[in-house]
Amino acid sequence: MALESWNDGVAKSTIVDFVARVTKEGAVEYVPPAERVAVFDNDGTLWCEQPIQVQIFFLIDRVKELVANDPSVKEREPFKALLEQDFATLLRLGKQAAMELFAATHAGMSEDEFEIIARAWFASARHPKYGRLFKQCTYSPQVELLGYLRENGFKTYIVSGGGVDMMRAFAEEGYGIAREQVIGSSMKLRFEIKEGRSHLMKVGELGSFDDREAKAANIGLHIGRRPILAFGNSDGDLAMMRYTKGGTGPRLALLLHHDDGEREFAYDREFKLSPLSEALDKAIEYDITVVSMKRDWKIVFA
Amino acid sequence: MALESWNDGVAKSTIVDFVARVTKEGAVEYVPPAERVAVFDNDGTLWCEQPIQVQIFFLIDRVKELVANDPSVKEREPFKALLEQDFATLLRLGKQAAMELFAATHAGMSEDEFEIIARAWFASARHPKYGRLFKQCTYSPQVELLGYLRENGFKTYIVSGGGVDMMRAFAEEGYGIAREQVIGSSMKLRFEIKEGRSHLMKVGELGSFDDREAKAANIGLHIGRRPILAFGNSDGDLAMMRYTKGGTGPRLALLLHHDDGEREFAYDREFKLSPLSEALDKAIEYDITVVSMKRDWKIVFA
Repeated sequence: MALESWNDGVAKSTIVDFVARVTKEGAVEYVPPAERVAVFDNDGTLWCEQPIQVQIFFLIDRVKELVANDPSVKEREPFKALLEQDFATLLRLGKQAAMELFAATHAGMSEDEFEIIARAWFASARHPKYGRLFKQCTYSPQVELLGYLRENGFKTYIVSGGGVDMMRAFAEEGYGIAREQVIGSSMKLRFEIKEGRSHLMKVGELGSFDDREAKAANIGLHIGRRPILAFGNSDGDLAMMRYTKGGTGPRLALLLHHDDGEREFAYDREFKLSPLSEALDKAIEYDITVVSMKRDWKIVFA
Repeated sequence: MALESWNDGVAKSTIVDFVARVTKEGAVEYVPPAERVAVFDNDGTLWCEQPIQVQIFFLIDRVKELVANDPSVKEREPFKALLEQDFATLLRLGKQAAMELFAATHAGMSEDEFEIIARAWFASARHPKYGRLFKQCTYSPQVELLGYLRENGFKTYIVSGGGVDMMRAFAEEGYGIAREQVIGSSMKLRFEIKEGRSHLMKVGELGSFDDREAKAANIGLHIGRRPILAFGNSDGDLAMMRYTKGGTGPRLALLLHHDDGEREFAYDREFKLSPLSEALDKAIEYDITVVSMKRDWKIVFA
């Protein structure tokens, strides 16, 4: 039985029906495997993003390390606001402040060095609410769905606002998604030869902030095919969903609604870090299938 | 027998030996399939780039279409120099002129529209020297090598200065390389909804010029793994080769030397559009295996 961690209902049958239609050879709606591209947002779609995104917990831990070396850091904005989890101030400080945080914590080192830091963090850091490792905060029904799609010849991608290097450090283990199928926000990389060895250095300069319209553009740049399935959970995923739906032939856009305050968190419009509003209001008009965490998922976490 | 279109010799045995070593399970140098990333330059490595790159022929044909609509175009630089194949002038006019040419011919349309134009061109345009279709100007020994690597669990990528959309229009057919495994120069993309349908518009602004150091950086961005094999033919490929060689474990960098004036063209340092000089001079120091077209290839074209 496919998708055992999903309850029977419209969402599950829509997915199973869609997959059956596009994989049935000779049928009108058949889609060759090479074109079975499925794109998934990460934060709030594949794993928990409450009370704040996993990468922000990582950011805080990284800043604490900076403070250990230089205590004056904790008196300076935007570091102060981050350590106090004062997101109103951080949002007010804006994009420049975010860049400063990422430049101080995610850059000035090689990709290989960052990978070691990220892996060490994933190996030990725990979610404050659940007490489990962050990498175990993935949603079981989604991990199952990813596997189900791959079994049916789909190529599964992450297309997320999260940092691409951070996600690559656990996407294979957490989702079975290869590094090259992870698209995310990125700092620029600079090729360098140091002491005869070559490195890609992470530079403190934004390459791409992979959110909203940029998600569709990055799909074009990295994949070069219009996906036939997109799964998101916020307005930041709407462009990617509409890009997916805009092609000819069968298309499926899915929107996860966090309506399960008991097993996870219940939120949508009011979540400032990544609101869900327009996508919910326009779901019918845009032919987006809303997945209710409460109704459609038998379990949430493994 | 592997690599039948290659003559026996150092180049061939180096390749075959390398593939044997990295694929032998249990051996010290074994590399798991996921990490068997091979990157190939395109122009001059996988297909002919003489007397000018294929994309420049395409550019000229596109400009001729502009002239058909507006004859004054042919009196204006940089269009005039391009139509007269006056590359000294074009190189003097510099990057800005190149951008203007690409913006006028490769942008202001959706990705889907460009794909149709590129496919139509590949279906009929012929190489002036060989009289064959451009897409048949691929090197047989390289097409065979790509297949051989894939049979051995490698993932083959193009990493080229050529336009990514142009290459994606024929890479699957020409090389068996999927669209998402093509990395190239690119114009920025803008997500747009027009008459209720979504498109990615090609904007007349440079996204990335995928040459030299940028090749290594784009490998980091798109693949997120250091390749274990790189094949190029010019100084523009040197950073990618050195990045490849800079990792631990077995690594192979190959450099095609165009020394076969009879079957193709003999050139290296003097080819202004893409010179080979430093890579040739430093091949021994950097442990790059030089492939001689004349000596190592049994045939050149199919």
